Amino acid sequence: MNALCFDKVLRFDDNYPEPKPEGDEVLIEVRMGGICATDLEIAKGYMDFTGVLGHEFVGMVVKGPRKWKQKRVVAQINCICGQCAMCQQGLSNHCRRRTVIGISGRDGVFADLIVVPERNLHEVPDGVSDEQAVFVEPLAAAFQVIKQCPIEKHMRVAVVGSGRLGLLVAQILRNTGCHLQVVGRNELTLNFCEKKRIQARRISELVPRGDNDVVVECSGAAEGFEMAMQLIRPRGTLILKSTYAEPASLNLSSIVVNEINLLGSRCGPFNEAIDALAYEQVDVESMISRQLPLSRGVEAFEMAADPRYIKILLKVGS
Amino acid sequence: MNALCFDKVLRFDDNYPEPKPEGDEVLIEVRMGGICATDLEIAKGYMDFTGVLGHEFVGMVVKGPRKWKQKRVVAQINCICGQCAMCQQGLSNHCRRRTVIGISGRDGVFADLIVVPERNLHEVPDGVSDEQAVFVEPLAAAFQVIKQCPIEKHMRVAVVGSGRLGLLVAQILRNTGCHLQVVGRNELTLNFCEKKRIQARRISELVPRGDNDVVVECSGAAEGFEMAMQLIRPRGTLILKSTYAEPASLNLSSIVVNEINLLGSRCGPFNEAIDALAYEQVDVESMISRQLPLSRGVEAFEMAADPRYIKILLKVGS
Repeated sequence: MNALCFDKVLRFDDNYPEPKPEGDEVLIEVRMGGICATDLEIAKGYMDFTGVLGHEFVGMVVKGPRKWKQKRVVAQINCICGQCAMCQQGLSNHCRRRTVIGISGRDGVFADLIVVPERNLHEVPDGVSDEQAVFVEPLAAAFQVIKQCPIEKHMRVAVVGSGRLGLLVAQILRNTGCHLQVVGRNELTLNFCEKKRIQARRISELVPRGDNDVVVECSGAAEGFEMAMQLIRPRGTLILKSTYAEPASLNLSSIVVNEINLLGSRCGPFNEAIDALAYEQVDVESMISRQLPLSRGVEAFEMAADPRYIKILLKVGS
Repeated sequence: MNALCFDKVLRFDDNYPEPKPEGDEVLIEVRMGGICATDLEIAKGYMDFTGVLGHEFVGMVVKGPRKWKQKRVVAQINCICGQCAMCQQGLSNHCRRRTVIGISGRDGVFADLIVVPERNLHEVPDGVSDEQAVFVEPLAAAFQVIKQCPIEKHMRVAVVGSGRLGLLVAQILRNTGCHLQVVGRNELTLNFCEKKRIQARRISELVPRGDNDVVVECSGAAEGFEMAMQLIRPRGTLILKSTYAEPASLNLSSIVVNEINLLGSRCGPFNEAIDALAYEQVDVESMISRQLPLSRGVEAFEMAADPRYIKILLKVGS
């Protein structure tokens, strides 16, 4: 089958072995995949991953229990054991023995076919297009921000980084009615914010006053983290959404002196993301810059790293 | 008057100008001071402080409102404006215009006389000795841990660092009845833990399993922080108590992936610390290694940095 693989280098393979479902796994024909910053980091060596890349997708179940047959689905990326202490405590996203689709120990979605545990599936409603559905996973991750840190209307909130994830987080935060500002350096994506009724500021024009109740760091860059630390008020909550390939040098003292609450945040609730798309509370389609066939995956990765584009989708199959 | 001053170097000065109380300040004769890790960091350049060092003390009010005259007192170290946004929100420890005794913009307590705002004073009950009272400030900081992160009996909690602050934090945590372990490298202080019915482990003997609900980092060292990150479970709370002169290199990704809650923690409630000493819930006197006169302050600082000693006190006045 066709697949976009990483093993020190990224390459398109038209003869990758087809996966066979085992145990409770279903076989899915991928229709569309999305490239995110984590994919770009993995292609730089993060997680020491080798195999098929990708974890954002929408596809059609072709083999599995009758109830799922020919259903259009998305899937949560953490494949869990269901038995370890984390799973028993309801924290299965942190399963000690998990594999993660296209990230850790399991092939990803940039391929004609994938296998996924049945429990990970979510059906996509008819009203949600493939182009929207491919955003369910990152949108769920964005929803995790307000799950971990409930936002109230009176709060001042800043999003650092106006990349793909930042734009999703910003739209969800806008919907809470809080006092929101997105801080970034990309003209294209800052303009996107303005169009979506979200106040946006160039990082170079900003004089941080340390007066935000909550700051969400979505830039994945050390400078972004430093800016976030300047934007947050004492006793404020700084949410880290991005994974970084490199360790950052950090002034821990200012976390202590200002009693900052630093909160790591990863995957989130799929149901809420699907609903938000179905009810058009979040506009993801305007974020799509290009759709390329899987065979042009290497080129698509280059585009995804280019600030002139926002979201790059990969079209899989016929 | 006599004072222990820092201005690029630490030196004893027997002719330092006496302070004059202004506004709501009272004049206090210092009886005893305690040297802590923050003092040692400041003497290495942290905070760019110059002036009289020290913020842990017990003294006698010699000039001020009648109700305080000849009262034996300790004092909170943040001297606040009472008017800024932080003060108005009840977060006066984070006052935007604060000075901090012996740390920022205000002379410290290693001197014959000090001036302190009246609102900062707490009377020391008769049952609490000078030697105990000098621990009120760091003990209050230790209490802040359970203020910010309520501890329940079923929880697994680790303290990294068995220094002065670690031993205070550990005693408070022991009193909650949680499953507690102190991790350190100093034989002397780990033995102190064992005597106090606190399980203690040498860092070199430990195989961290990432299964602690809460970890309190009290080592102030980058390696201590790394150990804390290995001890904490996914979704656990890592409390940072120590200030660091140097930035540490930090793997932010593991905070994100494991959704760690990193919580900076600084000053705490004096009332609870005074009560804990009055009711002998915490043993601080066994932590005192030596008491030196103020004139031997430079030597006392060297001792305080020496792992063969725990707490070094400075005796002030006659």
